[in-house]
Amino acid sequence: MFYHDKRLQYPVKVEKPDPHFARMLQQAIGGIEGEIRVCMQYFFQAWGARGPTTKYRDMLLHTATEEMGHVEMLATAVALNLEPAPLQDQEESAADAVVGAVMGGENPRHVMEGMLHRHILSTGLAAFPANSDGVPFDMSHIYASGNLAADMYCNVAAESTGRVLATRLYNATNDPGMKDMLHFMIARDTMHQQQWLAVIEELGGHEGTLPIPNSFPQSKEHQEHSYDFFATAADGSPPPQGRWTTGPSLDRKGEFSVFQNKPLGEEPVLGPARPHSGAQSEQID
Amino acid sequence: MFYHDKRLQYPVKVEKPDPHFARMLQQAIGGIEGEIRVCMQYFFQAWGARGPTTKYRDMLLHTATEEMGHVEMLATAVALNLEPAPLQDQEESAADAVVGAVMGGENPRHVMEGMLHRHILSTGLAAFPANSDGVPFDMSHIYASGNLAADMYCNVAAESTGRVLATRLYNATNDPGMKDMLHFMIARDTMHQQQWLAVIEELGGHEGTLPIPNSFPQSKEHQEHSYDFFATAADGSPPPQGRWTTGPSLDRKGEFSVFQNKPLGEEPVLGPARPHSGAQSEQID
Amino acid sequence: MFYHDKRLQYPVKVEKPDPHFARMLQQAIGGIEGEIRVCMQYFFQAWGARGPTTKYRDMLLHTATEEMGHVEMLATAVALNLEPAPLQDQEESAADAVVGAVMGGENPRHVMEGMLHRHILSTGLAAFPANSDGVPFDMSHIYASGNLAADMYCNVAAESTGRVLATRLYNATNDPGMKDMLHFMIARDTMHQQQWLAVIEELGGHEGTLPIPNSFPQSKEHQEHSYDFFATAADGSPPPQGRWTTGPSLDRKGEFSVFQNKPLGEEPVLGPARPHSGAQSEQID
Amino acid sequence: MFYHDKRLQYPVKVEKPDPHFARMLQQAIGGIEGEIRVCMQYFFQAWGARGPTTKYRDMLLHTATEEMGHVEMLATAVALNLEPAPLQDQEESAADAVVGAVMGGENPRHVMEGMLHRHILSTGLAAFPANSDGVPFDMSHIYASGNLAADMYCNVAAESTGRVLATRLYNATNDPGMKDMLHFMIARDTMHQQQWLAVIEELGGHEGTLPIPNSFPQSKEHQEHSYDFFATAADGSPPPQGRWTTGPSLDRKGEFSVFQNKPLGEEPVLGPARPHSGAQSEQID
Amino acid sequence: MFYHDKRLQYPVKVEKPDPHFARMLQQAIGGIEGEIRVCMQYFFQAWGARGPTTKYRDMLLHTATEEMGHVEMLATAVALNLEPAPLQDQEESAADAVVGAVMGGENPRHVMEGMLHRHILSTGLAAFPANSDGVPFDMSHIYASGNLAADMYCNVAAESTGRVLATRLYNATNDPGMKDMLHFMIARDTMHQQQWLAVIEELGGHEGTLPIPNSFPQSKEHQEHSYDFFATAADGSPPPQGRWTTGPSLDRKGEFSVFQNKPLGEEPVLGPARPHSGAQSEQID
Amino acid sequence: MFYHDKRLQYPVKVEKPDPHFARMLQQAIGGIEGEIRVCMQYFFQAWGARGPTTKYRDMLLHTATEEMGHVEMLATAVALNLEPAPLQDQEESAADAVVGAVMGGENPRHVMEGMLHRHILSTGLAAFPANSDGVPFDMSHIYASGNLAADMYCNVAAESTGRVLATRLYNATNDPGMKDMLHFMIARDTMHQQQWLAVIEELGGHEGTLPIPNSFPQSKEHQEHSYDFFATAADGSPPPQGRWTTGPSLDRKGEFSVFQNKPLGEEPVLGPARPHSGAQSEQID
Repeated sequence: MFYHDKRLQYPVKVEKPDPHFARMLQQAIGGIEGEIRVCMQYFFQAWGARGPTTKYRDMLLHTATEEMGHVEMLATAVALNLEPAPLQDQEESAADAVVGAVMGGENPRHVMEGMLHRHILSTGLAAFPANSDGVPFDMSHIYASGNLAADMYCNVAAESTGRVLATRLYNATNDPGMKDMLHFMIARDTMHQQQWLAVIEELGGHEGTLPIPNSFPQSKEHQEHSYDFFATAADGSPPPQGRWTTGPSLDRKGEFSVFQNKPLGEEPVLGPARPHSGAQSEQID
Repeated sequence: MFYHDKRLQYPVKVEKPDPHFARMLQQAIGGIEGEIRVCMQYFFQAWGARGPTTKYRDMLLHTATEEMGHVEMLATAVALNLEPAPLQDQEESAADAVVGAVMGGENPRHVMEGMLHRHILSTGLAAFPANSDGVPFDMSHIYASGNLAADMYCNVAAESTGRVLATRLYNATNDPGMKDMLHFMIARDTMHQQQWLAVIEELGGHEGTLPIPNSFPQSKEHQEHSYDFFATAADGSPPPQGRWTTGPSLDRKGEFSVFQNKPLGEEPVLGPARPHSGAQSEQID
Repeated sequence: MFYHDKRLQYPVKVEKPDPHFARMLQQAIGGIEGEIRVCMQYFFQAWGARGPTTKYRDMLLHTATEEMGHVEMLATAVALNLEPAPLQDQEESAADAVVGAVMGGENPRHVMEGMLHRHILSTGLAAFPANSDGVPFDMSHIYASGNLAADMYCNVAAESTGRVLATRLYNATNDPGMKDMLHFMIARDTMHQQQWLAVIEELGGHEGTLPIPNSFPQSKEHQEHSYDFFATAADGSPPPQGRWTTGPSLDRKGEFSVFQNKPLGEEPVLGPARPHSGAQSEQID
Repeated sequence: MFYHDKRLQYPVKVEKPDPHFARMLQQAIGGIEGEIRVCMQYFFQAWGARGPTTKYRDMLLHTATEEMGHVEMLATAVALNLEPAPLQDQEESAADAVVGAVMGGENPRHVMEGMLHRHILSTGLAAFPANSDGVPFDMSHIYASGNLAADMYCNVAAESTGRVLATRLYNATNDPGMKDMLHFMIARDTMHQQQWLAVIEELGGHEGTLPIPNSFPQSKEHQEHSYDFFATAADGSPPPQGRWTTGPSLDRKGEFSVFQNKPLGEEPVLGPARPHSGAQSEQID
Repeated sequence: MFYHDKRLQYPVKVEKPDPHFARMLQQAIGGIEGEIRVCMQYFFQAWGARGPTTKYRDMLLHTATEEMGHVEMLATAVALNLEPAPLQDQEESAADAVVGAVMGGENPRHVMEGMLHRHILSTGLAAFPANSDGVPFDMSHIYASGNLAADMYCNVAAESTGRVLATRLYNATNDPGMKDMLHFMIARDTMHQQQWLAVIEELGGHEGTLPIPNSFPQSKEHQEHSYDFFATAADGSPPPQGRWTTGPSLDRKGEFSVFQNKPLGEEPVLGPARPHSGAQSEQID
Repeated sequence: MFYHDKRLQYPVKVEKPDPHFARMLQQAIGGIEGEIRVCMQYFFQAWGARGPTTKYRDMLLHTATEEMGHVEMLATAVALNLEPAPLQDQEESAADAVVGAVMGGENPRHVMEGMLHRHILSTGLAAFPANSDGVPFDMSHIYASGNLAADMYCNVAAESTGRVLATRLYNATNDPGMKDMLHFMIARDTMHQQQWLAVIEELGGHEGTLPIPNSFPQSKEHQEHSYDFFATAADGSPPPQGRWTTGPSLDRKGEFSVFQNKPLGEEPVLGPARPHSGAQSEQID
């Protein structure tokens, strides 16, 4: 169960409200690389964690709970970026003036700036759980497979795309408050990339974990092709050489090679459509 | 551009059609762990690949093209599992009899078996691009971030959950044809896990690639917390110890430690709602 | 069944076409606070209404049918706002000039103004059933629970957010025609808020309807906590005082109090993963 | 920010695991009437709350934090209902036997029971953030309008449909552990219905809050129709009489009456399609 | 604007309630081939219809209004199929007994039959705007392009898949009431296929309407390939011969031929990733 | 199975990168009228094609494979339109300058231009499988019904709306490279409209294929209304006359006429809600 503190995990300050940046921040709230995603992903992985110890469940709970605080910080940042600017700034800046105009309603012709309308129309100048296009977050992005190693790689993927997004946001603002908030969040993403990869290392690294799931005996797979790079160029030209075309596999259980893809199967033939199946008569035997 | 061969990449045979299994196979077609996802993900990563060489673009095209053939194999497997069983089998098996009944329409009371209805009602006994719950695949699951290392981890995640799914399917069927098809597909998932991790290794492994993106100077992040595990237990009890709580970080750029989470920020205070903003009067200053 | 009249329920006129406003109006068509939602919600509530009388079913049909006319009005308003402006207005207004340019195709460099592109690309300057971000309306927002009182509150919620939206739209336009249309629609929202609350009153108000469903005996609920406000501050600081922390409950069946939340349960322990379940070996007993 | 306790808010015990019931419980996790919805709805309302005091923001934070613990309880309940039954129960029960068979993989022909497949295929016998049809939760259901009264009615609607669902779940299980968990959760829904209505009362009840938003002057609405029930029967037959057809309105600002709906507007005429607009030639002037 | 009659367009009677069939009927309500789709599609096409006459707008309004009555019929049919069966039938039929058990709650172990749960949990035994998998209808399926001929083909497509579905439903029930309802609806689908094709004929048939849009001068298209069938077999084997490989084109403006597809373009080369763009350093020039 | 060639099907060149146009092109990638849709639609129709010959399956495979190359061309076009403009152009054009600023990060205040943010934030200046509003493509738009004639009309609909879109894009750019690419793609859409209609003709045209499915005996439909135009004007005024109101039907099996719609059924009466069903007490018998 959970407790809250009204204070934020880290300071969130906005010197010059910027509704454009508010819209960009939405990607970090409700985008697939965002914080709702990692928060919920870690929670559902924790709640379904099975294994001889509760160690990974516990760890996931700590970090999921931390992430909920990140969602809160970003939602606060959006709301603050939608506040009217101080008066002198409004005079200086056309963009800020729009905010003032919107809030006071004096100048409805200028209301719609593209990045503002949804916050105004539907939320009254607050954050909402959607990405910067206004597409609501969809919980199918909560990856929790029941396989610990697979889940860890899902988490690395989430934190990698998440940190990429955070650095793009950092580069897109000059506001000292926003930069400070992001330089904290970027640091946390750094750690979280480490954290999930450290689980992989603890589980034995490439050799211990691969192929995932490691509980399925490789004797049951078609081992002839387990370490083949399949080339599909129509003219049979060779694929680019890389670590994956020659040498020992990362799990040390095979040797990479290149296989020119070709049909090993036949042309499939389906039975005709059946009577009463809603097909055209011509399709029915 | 692309070419096709009418023959399948690998044989797809079904000895005893099983509509239950057809439904399960849908997860490998239109599920988030499925083959449409990896096919399209590799294509979009390839088409947007930027960098001094086209090496990774080229590699991605080879594998994306291979994956399209996997979608084809699975769609064929679904259609074959929805064929009526040979006559003698129908007599032996209630489940198979349902299929016959459905097709002939003689016994409408037994039509609906849950796993059949959508194939019959909407596709005429064929595969469709949805998961085994009938939820259509949604292209937001195509992860392509523009960062090569992040994309590779997205791919590892996809192939890890994909191989987990494939082994579960393997364990859920006794049909020799289906087992053979899956033991080939599982082998390919083995290779694809290797392949994307090999790119990471080629790029320098943990030390060379982390934190992702490695192009953002860590001097701009709040380094005090870059390698801290944040503990969020309300009673301050310590988190479980692991590779991620002490010792050198995986990128060799820091040292792991534990930090008891606490509010570093203040309670946020938003301005009042503005006149004409659609709030209740009580919210307006 | 239904009939139509080609004339609109209320006049829809646009003096100065404004594609920005067209985009805003889309929120009232295909937004979750919009008219498709209430129309379909009332229809599905009507079609599933069960009870000793058909009174509520009948009432719902009247209002659902009215709402279909509101969707029509708004779709017409969008189309009219996308008409080219009269010539003299085009000269005066950059925004309007864009519309002319778009329509004539003379100036393709200026085509894309953000709010126009989807209307042009996909609808040929007409309304479409999506919100102002272009997110299509999703019928999961049709709330119809089979419980009359719950449904009435769903309807109050819809009409409250709907009237909030309508007033924001009213404040965002200076066009006399649009203001007139909206001042009619806002009046209808006023009535519809009344209407659903009047059903609650007719059913006995707070005392008669609460808790919803009132057919479930409260003896079966954990009454010790039925009127407790659960406080979750980590430091145990008291929550804000309000009507909900002390005094008789609204249904007169209890007394409000405050309860400091704490774990009444234990740490859950799930069984290990099973063999053949696709987990890592380490998770399997 | 947030803290967690590994223990659950209330005991969650399952005597006889029942995968059917696990599927039903999913509706309370990822359904539109479920706990993720209320948790996130209260959080986003809190994070965007504007007004002279932080009272409502604070209250919302308390309850949102409580709800996160409810999601945890339900996710745990799903996982426990997917555990294999004790041995003697397995012998007695076909349904339970299926679970064993599935887990051990011995009997793949019986694997698919409809309610099990998604938990097995995609989550490894754990909860996931989707409803009982497997449709993932979509964050567009987080209603937060920026208007305090509208938001309270959205919350009443959520808790009303939520308690209806919880009582249906209670009636659908005989498991003492599940019944106990639900009788706690039903009590909390009772309180939460009270709580949001108490805010309405504190804000002045019907007279003080209606019409929502009360900050929009009714002088700007078409008051002639503000308290009219519009009748739409084609033959002009009168609508059913009710509290909403005669007598004073609930806000005491008007008198209910019935108005036979009729076209007050004209048939709309749109301009022809423009050259280069992609219409057929016949549509172009 | 619209009027209603409480009576149904055509009788809807159910002799033996069948929850399985109720679930199948949902496909005709909220499936992509269903009645909400055609109803809303015709309305939005009407409301956006542009051209020298209002003839097509008017026609569309007639038929859209008819379709709303079909949604009503189907929703009623679902509700009636979810009624408890008469007593003697309950004794005869396990499936029907389930319904009774569910409603009375006596036998929770048997509650979940897969096709029932959503109707019970979320709607209280009524229809809802989703398909037979419970996937809510998504308004992106309302095709209205602003091009009259394109829209007509969208409508033919909808009515063709719709009638296919209706005949499958007809073949799946023995209930005389349901068969009667469907034999009416199938007749209406027959007419609606005719109707939209008749518009095409009125507009000049293949020669008058093709290529759509006919307002775009073919001189601006790459006419060398306007009537070529592109063959993509990797081994250059010829495609199957058909009406589309030789002979005059349907619009009489060209001659069909076969073209072996080959790359006419070059390998694309994208610029490197830019500094500060969140790419890995290796991707940056 | 499939092969690729690194070269594009047709040249894709961009003289002046235009991020506005990149956004518009997204509609042709991930819009419902776009190329992913036709590619996947033809593949799934092929993979499920049943009938005495594999002719239509084969033809569909050729064209689906061609379409995959179109997706590639468009994704390449998007990436090229997001490249920085040559230096002199940047000086001339505010819009282009934005791109440079964005990439270099020098001027974060100007970053957000609406059409750029998603490409920058989430993809690093590449295409993604969503429409021009950023709504991800949803595979429910893959229409494959199992009825050959219905599928052909679905394909005509897709290619008609697709060519409408392509001509709108053509009219929206002055870039010679983009115009050249589109004049090729428009030609291919011309052919594909022909191709699917040619199948209809080969199957017997209107008389041979209608009503779809032609395998359902018309004797089972309510033939009295099979060729009636139902008029729904409330005042009984006649509908507009057209090819569909008088004369022989297109399939030569009936005669068109007009029928004034009226209720042929009765008011439906549903049973009361049952005990324990979660309804209000007042709804329960």
